[in-house]
Amino acid sequence: MIVQKYKDMLQGKSVIRQLSEFATARGQKIGYENVFDFSLGNPSVPVPQEFTDVMIKMLQERDPMELHGYSQSLGIPSVRDKVAASLNKRFGMNYTGNHIFMTTGAAGAIAHAVRCVAQPGDEVLTFAPYFPEYAPYINLTGAVLKVVPADTENFQINFEAFEEMLTEKVAAVLINTPNNPSGTVYSSSTLAKLAGMMEEKQRQYGHDIFLISDEPYREIVFEGVDAPYPSAFYDNSLSCYSFSKSLSLPGERIGYVAVNPKCTDAELISVMCSQISRGTGHNCPPSIIQLAVAEVLDLTSDLSVYEKNMNILYKELTDLGFACVRPGGTFYMFPKSPEQDAVAFSEKAKKYDLILVPSDSFGLKGYFRIAYCIDTEKVERSLEAFRKFVKENY
Amino acid sequence: MIVQKYKDMLQGKSVIRQLSEFATARGQKIGYENVFDFSLGNPSVPVPQEFTDVMIKMLQERDPMELHGYSQSLGIPSVRDKVAASLNKRFGMNYTGNHIFMTTGAAGAIAHAVRCVAQPGDEVLTFAPYFPEYAPYINLTGAVLKVVPADTENFQINFEAFEEMLTEKVAAVLINTPNNPSGTVYSSSTLAKLAGMMEEKQRQYGHDIFLISDEPYREIVFEGVDAPYPSAFYDNSLSCYSFSKSLSLPGERIGYVAVNPKCTDAELISVMCSQISRGTGHNCPPSIIQLAVAEVLDLTSDLSVYEKNMNILYKELTDLGFACVRPGGTFYMFPKSPEQDAVAFSEKAKKYDLILVPSDSFGLKGYFRIAYCIDTEKVERSLEAFRKFVKENY
Repeated sequence: MIVQKYKDMLQGKSVIRQLSEFATARGQKIGYENVFDFSLGNPSVPVPQEFTDVMIKMLQERDPMELHGYSQSLGIPSVRDKVAASLNKRFGMNYTGNHIFMTTGAAGAIAHAVRCVAQPGDEVLTFAPYFPEYAPYINLTGAVLKVVPADTENFQINFEAFEEMLTEKVAAVLINTPNNPSGTVYSSSTLAKLAGMMEEKQRQYGHDIFLISDEPYREIVFEGVDAPYPSAFYDNSLSCYSFSKSLSLPGERIGYVAVNPKCTDAELISVMCSQISRGTGHNCPPSIIQLAVAEVLDLTSDLSVYEKNMNILYKELTDLGFACVRPGGTFYMFPKSPEQDAVAFSEKAKKYDLILVPSDSFGLKGYFRIAYCIDTEKVERSLEAFRKFVKENY
Repeated sequence: MIVQKYKDMLQGKSVIRQLSEFATARGQKIGYENVFDFSLGNPSVPVPQEFTDVMIKMLQERDPMELHGYSQSLGIPSVRDKVAASLNKRFGMNYTGNHIFMTTGAAGAIAHAVRCVAQPGDEVLTFAPYFPEYAPYINLTGAVLKVVPADTENFQINFEAFEEMLTEKVAAVLINTPNNPSGTVYSSSTLAKLAGMMEEKQRQYGHDIFLISDEPYREIVFEGVDAPYPSAFYDNSLSCYSFSKSLSLPGERIGYVAVNPKCTDAELISVMCSQISRGTGHNCPPSIIQLAVAEVLDLTSDLSVYEKNMNILYKELTDLGFACVRPGGTFYMFPKSPEQDAVAFSEKAKKYDLILVPSDSFGLKGYFRIAYCIDTEKVERSLEAFRKFVKENY
């Protein structure tokens, strides 16, 4: 019998997807170069040439039986060792390969991390504004996502609301820094206070509360911004990573869970993840992609375009009177809508071929997201459209 | 809180894995070439050169942004179209790209297929002898795997037992032909009778009962054996495929679900699968692997070695007095153990450096599995060990 739950999900269409489809359709009419499509978080710079070279070299030189043979479901041991060594070097951690579980991107990483530490019925907290996919990611595990209201002052953490919601039912707290959609990076003092509060509640309730840290934008941090490593602040932490943004490889779906060596059952969690995989049908990522990223772990695409675009847009929008927390990283910004109804605002913007995502689906009303992972030339051309839009409407 | 269910699973160690580890350890002592390791189903012939050439060409020539960019979670449309066309041509089906959902191998395919058609608590039937991973694959969805006793005469279907177990609670029936571990291929008359019985029960119970057909060995069929396509026999059918065996790509984890165009909600199932993916963290397989297999859909590795090995082993073992249903495909055979206790038999075989998997974990006692996906030269050298083993023990 067809399972109704998944059939019902087909009704709810993503706002981002709808806007992206609108942009594509509009582009077919007026030329896509004339649509200022700020809807999608798709990297706009190529993978480093070294990745391509490593892939070709392996295909040309390695024994195909060995290259394409079955790999361990936790990931290839040499790859896990290299990921651990790279994290240790960069963030002063003490991971070994045993703490790394290779995944098909951050979605795969979160799916495993949550199932490891939250039973069906348990609550998982996250903070507004948040990536809308967290709702299906968490709720389809059987756990229940609860959203802590935003700190609209600077998109750090609303600790008062957090403390109230951090009840005995909470099994895990899911953070995302640098953040989609706000572009904010959690400061050391935010992470220290978060960790302190969670530790206190762990003691009080007598059970573990895990920090699940979703970090696909970890490498996209702007000049002068301190981007501390969340797992360094809290023992019971699982770091979820994707190479999609740092290496511009979103279609190759490669990431990992890094299990804090100081967490409860630290040595068991990656092997537990491989048990979870048997049920979710998650296989470890393809051998060749694992082996290739392991050779370019300390490289990134040329990410400078994102900061350049942010500076241009931030200046123009604040000059035009938009209130906006200055992004510390990612390729998003999240200004306040000049009218209460961000959906109406986004509708009006479409008339100027500005494709802006209203904030409602991010768990906060009255803002909009700009994904500025597009060519700088186009960002510059969009400024006139922003000016006209504001002048004629607000 | 660490979830105990997955922690508990760490206790149960796979017999196949244990034997494979024993073989590796023994190989370190006496040279692996002297261990007749028939434990693992890992292909022993390389991927076709065309696959490697296509991968290199894409990496050299295509725009990396386009090649590695985000793909649709159902799979790349052109790839889905090609898979549909290939199945239509070979099996006289009427799939369109909309009926194909790309997965990370057969495990991913089954995980999605089961979640589409079975609610937690529903029963899923399979037939002994069966691939032991079906237990976690099914049971971790919340559905309950029930095993129909074997037809030990010829490893087709024990219809009497099947009819008794095909109660109103059954949401799906999971088959695997050509079969791991028996090597048997279901005949047209078996599939027709299976379909007829399921249709009758659908009418009687007034609800759909889906056929989930796991077909990773579809292309490994021996001379003179008719291997009918299961979905051609039954409308409510989902075909689950992996390229692991046909293209010797097990580490690259690529496969699909093909939804019978005549099944209930045929147009919805692939999009339902992409909803399921949001919860399981299954992303579609990597773009580059999807695009590469789409170019070699009608090729296979040189699979002739498996038939050659089967003929050598089948002759020798039946000459030695083993009772064995002659395999019609795969790279497995499943002879009867000369003593009731197959575990004891397998233990004794180890003394002759013969690594044979006892049948108990396949849902049937008193048999053993030989995975003859190894070099023919080694198969030939193993015959003397088999002779000595039998002579000295039985």
